[in-house]
Amino acid sequence: MDGRVTTPSKAVILAIGSEMLSPARHDTNSLYITGVLNELGIDVAYKSVVADNLAELRAQIAQALSRHRVLILTGGLGPTDDDLTREAVAGQLGLPLREDPDLVEAIRARFATRGIPMPEVNRRQAQVPDGATVLHNPRGSAPGLLIDREGAVIALLPGPPREMQPMMDGPVRDRLAAFTGGLRLMRRTLRVAGRTESRVEELTQPIYSAWLTQAPPIETTILATPGSIELHLGTQVRHEAEGAAALSEAVGQLACRLGPDLVSLDGHTVEQVVGDLLRARGWRIALAESCTGGLATSRLTDVAGSSDYVERGWVAYSNRAKSDLLGVSDALIAEHGAVSAPVARAMAEGALARATADVAVAITGIAGPGGGTEAKPIGTVWMAVALAAPRETRTLLCRFLGSRHLIKTFAAVTALDLVRRRLLEAPWDIDWARR
Amino acid sequence: MDGRVTTPSKAVILAIGSEMLSPARHDTNSLYITGVLNELGIDVAYKSVVADNLAELRAQIAQALSRHRVLILTGGLGPTDDDLTREAVAGQLGLPLREDPDLVEAIRARFATRGIPMPEVNRRQAQVPDGATVLHNPRGSAPGLLIDREGAVIALLPGPPREMQPMMDGPVRDRLAAFTGGLRLMRRTLRVAGRTESRVEELTQPIYSAWLTQAPPIETTILATPGSIELHLGTQVRHEAEGAAALSEAVGQLACRLGPDLVSLDGHTVEQVVGDLLRARGWRIALAESCTGGLATSRLTDVAGSSDYVERGWVAYSNRAKSDLLGVSDALIAEHGAVSAPVARAMAEGALARATADVAVAITGIAGPGGGTEAKPIGTVWMAVALAAPRETRTLLCRFLGSRHLIKTFAAVTALDLVRRRLLEAPWDIDWARR
Repeated sequence: MDGRVTTPSKAVILAIGSEMLSPARHDTNSLYITGVLNELGIDVAYKSVVADNLAELRAQIAQALSRHRVLILTGGLGPTDDDLTREAVAGQLGLPLREDPDLVEAIRARFATRGIPMPEVNRRQAQVPDGATVLHNPRGSAPGLLIDREGAVIALLPGPPREMQPMMDGPVRDRLAAFTGGLRLMRRTLRVAGRTESRVEELTQPIYSAWLTQAPPIETTILATPGSIELHLGTQVRHEAEGAAALSEAVGQLACRLGPDLVSLDGHTVEQVVGDLLRARGWRIALAESCTGGLATSRLTDVAGSSDYVERGWVAYSNRAKSDLLGVSDALIAEHGAVSAPVARAMAEGALARATADVAVAITGIAGPGGGTEAKPIGTVWMAVALAAPRETRTLLCRFLGSRHLIKTFAAVTALDLVRRRLLEAPWDIDWARR
Repeated sequence: MDGRVTTPSKAVILAIGSEMLSPARHDTNSLYITGVLNELGIDVAYKSVVADNLAELRAQIAQALSRHRVLILTGGLGPTDDDLTREAVAGQLGLPLREDPDLVEAIRARFATRGIPMPEVNRRQAQVPDGATVLHNPRGSAPGLLIDREGAVIALLPGPPREMQPMMDGPVRDRLAAFTGGLRLMRRTLRVAGRTESRVEELTQPIYSAWLTQAPPIETTILATPGSIELHLGTQVRHEAEGAAALSEAVGQLACRLGPDLVSLDGHTVEQVVGDLLRARGWRIALAESCTGGLATSRLTDVAGSSDYVERGWVAYSNRAKSDLLGVSDALIAEHGAVSAPVARAMAEGALARATADVAVAITGIAGPGGGTEAKPIGTVWMAVALAAPRETRTLLCRFLGSRHLIKTFAAVTALDLVRRRLLEAPWDIDWARR
């Protein structure tokens, strides 16, 4: 140990759960928590994933609080025997645990709304360390806890992201804001589609590298996600107006460079942007999918209110389904193969003719791991977008690399991006390869 | 601190690098390292991502070695000022650092092959703590280091995965194999659907709690995922046959208790199991989705080879699509509403009549955030499964809690589980609530 360090601006994150110590699992909560901490100007000193083991947990809590004054724990607040976070924190801080009768009632009421009696094990979730503030959980049975102790702030948050996030972004953020000296991190996220990560880097690096030495400096990170690239801009400022102006100027420079490949200036996904474009025109869309198996339609309907513009979709997985559902002739399939420009075109036009829609998109390809040939290797995907007026259909060939799941995702996102490009009359010369 | 614990079979992984403490970055090296450790029968007690800070690093090393005897560090072995792993380990263990002239020459030779003189900073990479074994790095300039010290094994590995992995899988694995005396960790994963996490816990806890005191002891972890629950069983044994027998016995006890709610004994997902059942019968399936927007079909087609049994799907998002595509009469929708048992039934039967399929599943519900009423709140979903022979349709009402995305996922997985139950003639009395 190198002695007690108490920088006010460093935090420790402990994600608790043995299942996250397997070779196949990530802790993702710490990323969200880090985002909120950084926005408050708080850096993370270290973060750990800890097994469901009381001695280990207590040692970790002791270690964190011996050097730092912000400790965020996530997970281990469930009702079962291996949920030990409450006991570990209360034990380490010497705070007695007491059952909160109001909490018992709240948990019981939550079960009652679903017509289920509260299992006895769930009483454990109503145990509160002496002096802790209860953070109510409208989305689950595990309440969060917030503890102020000897100049340190300790937050116990549930493991499921949808329960953890509102607590971190609400009461925990509010408590920590008082801790920092008024510096704040401001961020903007841009989304690009149809370009590889290297190409985005090549286009933008000469621009963003200059921002590091300006005042305020802006840091840029490029992050590839399946089917699109995110550009994260961040700047730490004392005054919001200063940060907003610097970020707007920076975003403007990037927009100018990226042109129609820029999907959104606010991180909105391709499906959100396509939805906004359709809604603005009062248009409806139909989808005809083969290798993506419904994924493009599912992504589009992930957006709230999408029933306003998603009219219908077909998953024409078999050749017979392609002809029955979309009128693709057997002869056309026999001549060109199911994965071909003419079949993609016929699927899109067949969808448009059979829906009450203004635009239709079709996807037919080989997701693998079987089915590839030399002429049409795994990852070969034909796409088509058909418009009702002017009556016009365009097709595009893509060759994606990766697993079956990745090829499905690339194809679904790219097809939606083609709809975006068609609606904006933007060029179709996209880079479809993975990197 | 709860006192010194020296289980030979627990390890600590420290991934070093401030860049991995951003909101957008994962440490992936620890997953690979965990895989190798588990194969050797070594569990991970905890793993941490630590900033490039000497005091923090030394505290982490001290903490790890105070409780555990295997410590794997990755990253921070580069030539620059913020690469501190060598210094931190040597300092904490009280081992002087000495420049290894052979290593300097090896690094110089590596640069020479690329026609570059060795930058002076790279001399740092030739610093070796007294008594450490050098692990040569054919893929980069940073050598690894292996230290035996007071009964503990400490490995310092480079950060780039392609440099780290051969060292972990080679000399570090060999050293640790001698350490564990041949113990290995064996795992099994079971998957349950149609029950809440609390209910699974209630059913299984009396069984698995007894396993902790048997020989060999089996540790059990319960993990909720959207739509299904995973039970992870693990046991450390010297002989594979002993572990296999103990796990088989344990799995048998759980299978007996969980009955038809048990989806798989090998962690296979609902969509994989449904696929296997359909393939075994030579059956094909059609899907009619409304609120899930294609997600159930997409999940089913995530499985390689699913084109053998997924015949076709419809996303009948609008009422008009329900009548056009599936023959659901306007009068039926007007009388009962689009989210109702009769409409779910008509969708499934309409799908079956319009496909070359033996079974059809239909999903109609309210994913939110809009569209809920008092009688049919957000999360209300009707499902139906129709069989061709015997000609029979069953329906089920579910009420899911959560975000739009979560309701879609719960509904899609549950609908596929209903297909599984129907194919197995298992009961339909499922708990559809989240917990």
